[in-house]
Amino acid sequence: MNFNKRIENLKNYLVEKKLDLLILDDPISLLYLTGLTLSLGKIFISKEKSVLFVDGRYFENAKKHSEIEVRNLSEKNFSDFIINENEIQKIGFDSSIITYNSYEKLSSFIEKIKNVKNSLNLQLIPIANPLKEFRSIKDLDEISLMKQAAALNWKGFEHACQFLKEGITEKQLALEYEIFVKKNGAQKLSFDPIVCFGKNSSKPHHVSGLTKLKLDDIVLMDIGCTFNNYSSDMTRVIFFGKADPTLEKIYSITKKAQMKALSLCRPNTKIKDLDLAAREVFKEENYENNFVHSLGHGVGLEIHEYPRIKSDGDDKEDVLKQGMVITIEPGLYIPDFGGVRYEDTILITQNGYENFYSSI
Amino acid sequence: MNFNKRIENLKNYLVEKKLDLLILDDPISLLYLTGLTLSLGKIFISKEKSVLFVDGRYFENAKKHSEIEVRNLSEKNFSDFIINENEIQKIGFDSSIITYNSYEKLSSFIEKIKNVKNSLNLQLIPIANPLKEFRSIKDLDEISLMKQAAALNWKGFEHACQFLKEGITEKQLALEYEIFVKKNGAQKLSFDPIVCFGKNSSKPHHVSGLTKLKLDDIVLMDIGCTFNNYSSDMTRVIFFGKADPTLEKIYSITKKAQMKALSLCRPNTKIKDLDLAAREVFKEENYENNFVHSLGHGVGLEIHEYPRIKSDGDDKEDVLKQGMVITIEPGLYIPDFGGVRYEDTILITQNGYENFYSSI
Repeated sequence: MNFNKRIENLKNYLVEKKLDLLILDDPISLLYLTGLTLSLGKIFISKEKSVLFVDGRYFENAKKHSEIEVRNLSEKNFSDFIINENEIQKIGFDSSIITYNSYEKLSSFIEKIKNVKNSLNLQLIPIANPLKEFRSIKDLDEISLMKQAAALNWKGFEHACQFLKEGITEKQLALEYEIFVKKNGAQKLSFDPIVCFGKNSSKPHHVSGLTKLKLDDIVLMDIGCTFNNYSSDMTRVIFFGKADPTLEKIYSITKKAQMKALSLCRPNTKIKDLDLAAREVFKEENYENNFVHSLGHGVGLEIHEYPRIKSDGDDKEDVLKQGMVITIEPGLYIPDFGGVRYEDTILITQNGYENFYSSI
Repeated sequence: MNFNKRIENLKNYLVEKKLDLLILDDPISLLYLTGLTLSLGKIFISKEKSVLFVDGRYFENAKKHSEIEVRNLSEKNFSDFIINENEIQKIGFDSSIITYNSYEKLSSFIEKIKNVKNSLNLQLIPIANPLKEFRSIKDLDEISLMKQAAALNWKGFEHACQFLKEGITEKQLALEYEIFVKKNGAQKLSFDPIVCFGKNSSKPHHVSGLTKLKLDDIVLMDIGCTFNNYSSDMTRVIFFGKADPTLEKIYSITKKAQMKALSLCRPNTKIKDLDLAAREVFKEENYENNFVHSLGHGVGLEIHEYPRIKSDGDDKEDVLKQGMVITIEPGLYIPDFGGVRYEDTILITQNGYENFYSSI
């Protein structure tokens, strides 16, 4: 991965946002900008200079692997940076992550520096999730890892399917999936597997439990694992025995809605148009009230990333871009009866998209 | 669990802190106060009334199981509560968890209410972790679950020990532990198992990797799993073959330091005195610089809870209380050579302590 390029992109971002310094300290941002897994640390990025601050536990390893300068994590070193760098005034921080208490601490730290050197006109500027758009465009290395995560996820699904026998519980099936992917290179699960038997499938966020599989049950599996920090995400349903006609019907409507949304997946399509296209299919079939969640989301270092594919969400007016990796996951749910969801993870390409689950 | 009592305790806390309302919305606080696992929700506690707000996904289930009133999660319902309850002025929120953005949102919401009803003199009061002291004292149900979690953790350790053979990797051993505890009732792992072979044991936060076990290696396992939401935590070292004399020596010093600290574990002992007692043993042996972390921490719904057992930490002047469950985990680390840690989880009893790992 080209960490230098990521830092360069952020330097341009500083110019664009009229900031002199950006401070980030959440583990995902640190990982994205340095490649290092750090439970604690800070990165300071100014137009001229970038420094990673870590404590004794991480110092030697960071020195060895970081492409940017590494210094010890200490208030003294933070204030030295701010005082010695050229003309720092506006300091951005991630307001979507920092806690109230940490902000108060940062704020009084800045006041302390001003007291020491009162020529400095320092100002804290809140910015929500400054890396989100950068992170949404995956580079070739990231795409390769995400494809490997998806391939492993698919193999885990196939493996789990072998355990579909009457009497197995949702939890046991989820665990067989987990054991397989972890024995075969997965680092973690992206989320707790959502395994639903029978009418439990009507709940999009069902927690896999002690329900036992019965003949003619519908089985819904929403599963994902990580490979080298990158997540996978997929949902499939299986009719274990005879399919209920209503569930079979909503399954084919759901597939149709997915195909419709996928047909619009290419650069410059508006986010809201994807969601509306799927909803339009449901409306034609009088099932519009049974689709109770958003159509999808970005995936990457986190399982839910920008953009959120929703016609009335914050990102609705944004457009798809080449390099985005998103899920398309329509579903229909009939309370206390059953539900279906069909979810793929796709890469937006130059003229269309590539489905991580179609070729396997 | 007596959720009503927990709410009653908080009502007394409101009086003591001169608050009229406390708003909590993190999943752990919601779980502690209602017994419900909610990814989203809010609880409002005033001196007269408590209400849980959840969305459609959770509403029916919450109605059925919650001991306090349940209403729909909506701004309208929040402001109705604030306007209709008697004389609400001072509103506390958890400043250690709320993000800057969420605080801004809460703050402008409060301003909106003031505009609608300007007789209300509403004020937001930051409180860091308001539940921490309540949560630190476990009731009998919690203690029973924590003992079950510990027993399962121990069985997982014994199971993993069977896989100690030359050539197994740290990751594989960690996975064997994980599979066993999950197949035997664990809900989750409390944290990623820290399995260290040979000199990797010198790093307290080593990430289990591809290092293979060799004859005469030291093996360090720091493991924990949850049972019905409650965590367990334990560390042991094993000499796989011949013990290195230096490691054997620091092992017996570490055990001695643990015994010393444990001998002080009873109600009213100051937190800092525990840590200092262990450090004193290390000092006598000229190893004081090799103990590089705190002596322990509270455990419960989270793996790290109040109090932090550290002679120079925020909780140093606080005292042990009956019902606290804490770890005592001294360790000595020789860089690039090896290290040991010995960790038990104990319950503070009326006159002393009970070790969750001594009777098994």
